[in-house]
Amino acid sequence: MKKLKRFGVSMNENLLKKFDDFIKKQKYKNRSEAIRDLIREKFVEEEWEKGKNVAGCIVIVYEHNIREIVNKITDIQHMFSKNIISTQHIHMDEENCMEIIAMKGNLKKIKELYFTLKSLKGVKYSSIIKSTIGKTLK
Amino acid sequence: MKKLKRFGVSMNENLLKKFDDFIKKQKYKNRSEAIRDLIREKFVEEEWEKGKNVAGCIVIVYEHNIREIVNKITDIQHMFSKNIISTQHIHMDEENCMEIIAMKGNLKKIKELYFTLKSLKGVKYSSIIKSTIGKTLK
Amino acid sequence: MKKLKRFGVSMNENLLKKFDDFIKKQKYKNRSEAIRDLIREKFVEEEWEKGKNVAGCIVIVYEHNIREIVNKITDIQHMFSKNIISTQHIHMDEENCMEIIAMKGNLKKIKELYFTLKSLKGVKYSSIIKSTIGKTLK
Amino acid sequence: MKKLKRFGVSMNENLLKKFDDFIKKQKYKNRSEAIRDLIREKFVEEEWEKGKNVAGCIVIVYEHNIREIVNKITDIQHMFSKNIISTQHIHMDEENCMEIIAMKGNLKKIKELYFTLKSLKGVKYSSIIKSTIGKTLK
Repeated sequence: MKKLKRFGVSMNENLLKKFDDFIKKQKYKNRSEAIRDLIREKFVEEEWEKGKNVAGCIVIVYEHNIREIVNKITDIQHMFSKNIISTQHIHMDEENCMEIIAMKGNLKKIKELYFTLKSLKGVKYSSIIKSTIGKTLK
Repeated sequence: MKKLKRFGVSMNENLLKKFDDFIKKQKYKNRSEAIRDLIREKFVEEEWEKGKNVAGCIVIVYEHNIREIVNKITDIQHMFSKNIISTQHIHMDEENCMEIIAMKGNLKKIKELYFTLKSLKGVKYSSIIKSTIGKTLK
Repeated sequence: MKKLKRFGVSMNENLLKKFDDFIKKQKYKNRSEAIRDLIREKFVEEEWEKGKNVAGCIVIVYEHNIREIVNKITDIQHMFSKNIISTQHIHMDEENCMEIIAMKGNLKKIKELYFTLKSLKGVKYSSIIKSTIGKTLK
Repeated sequence: MKKLKRFGVSMNENLLKKFDDFIKKQKYKNRSEAIRDLIREKFVEEEWEKGKNVAGCIVIVYEHNIREIVNKITDIQHMFSKNIISTQHIHMDEENCMEIIAMKGNLKKIKELYFTLKSLKGVKYSSIIKSTIGKTLK
């Protein structure tokens, strides 16, 4: 069972008013929820700086009719099967596919997979997004 | 059928040597592939600045045993069903879930969904990643 | 005279412990100061999204012995003199100069100056940094 | 004397057309200059990942009438005088100052200075910008 703690924050009136506008715009229920979110964002950045046990996603967009690209992407993912949690495949249009690969583990390994996919002929765009295994944010 | 064009690039020896090291490290097959990737990255940034017809993913990490959170997340996604392509759900551990939502459409709408999910009690981390519908990168 | 307000924030014990470690590492005097900083960061991002009355710096690194580059950089800065507050020049080594240009005004104008400098032959690196005129953060 | 090398890049017609539009918009003189810039950007990122011999700027915005803040900022900068190249000070309005500190050296040291300034009461905004000592981009 987690224990809830409470503490006071001081802020001048103007800054608080602006903060309340921000909360409203971003649909937060109350100040505590917004502040907890701001804090947790920083921790995920730190997790990734340490690089030991991160979670994240790789997104690639590619043309499926490039010779052998589908086989290559499949083979590569099997080589990294220990780090890949699951893959989501989207047929964007006649030519383009988007594939989203959820990963966890060592950042070095995740980057190796990222570079391997990114450099394939036919992969037109690739991007990596930070997430977290969640444990550190309790 | 796409037509291939060729043009020359000049670079001093040192910079070219460094570029070749970079290519090797990032596993590119040749200089052209690496340069095409550098160029396409800029275009996706521009697509998102225009904000008209983008593609991307939202990642959230949440605790599934927070009261009503699963229902709320489902309801919200149905409200944005025109923009959501598909969703991938991962059970990280006993407490934490990761959900990856592939989206396309107007950036304003995507951000609205993002803020709505991000502000839910129980959502501990959220992040948004740029991708592309691919058409512009042919 | 600014009026100070105070409000309560609730957080579970673990998250608060981690937050206190973060505060210590980043040398904040107390939780309020850290939270105010997290909040103000978001406002500067919003200022730049609106783009109307921003402040920031452009940093360029260039080789001063490239033909005419010093004159060109000076001429360009005079063309944008309404937006440039001041310029700091550093002789990095025999070949390289770093120039830091503090700017304020419309984001569109700032970007125009940035692209004009960035594209000059001899400018080897350029970067733009967000800051604020400060008024909105009172 | 630096030796200039030349190599060919292949690209399909559509991508090249888009690239030429990008070049025009960003005011580059020719394709080579634009490509060299894209490449050098990546190298500065790598320099900062290594963290050994970087250059950069710290920007802070603060209210000068907060008790002792001017003295504190001066004292801190003297403690880091080995890493600080020079400082540019701007009086934004009656209340707000912007100070831009050009730095070089070890990233760890630069971050330490950054956190020390950022956490001061009265410092309302702070930001750090990557630059380069230039040597690696020849």
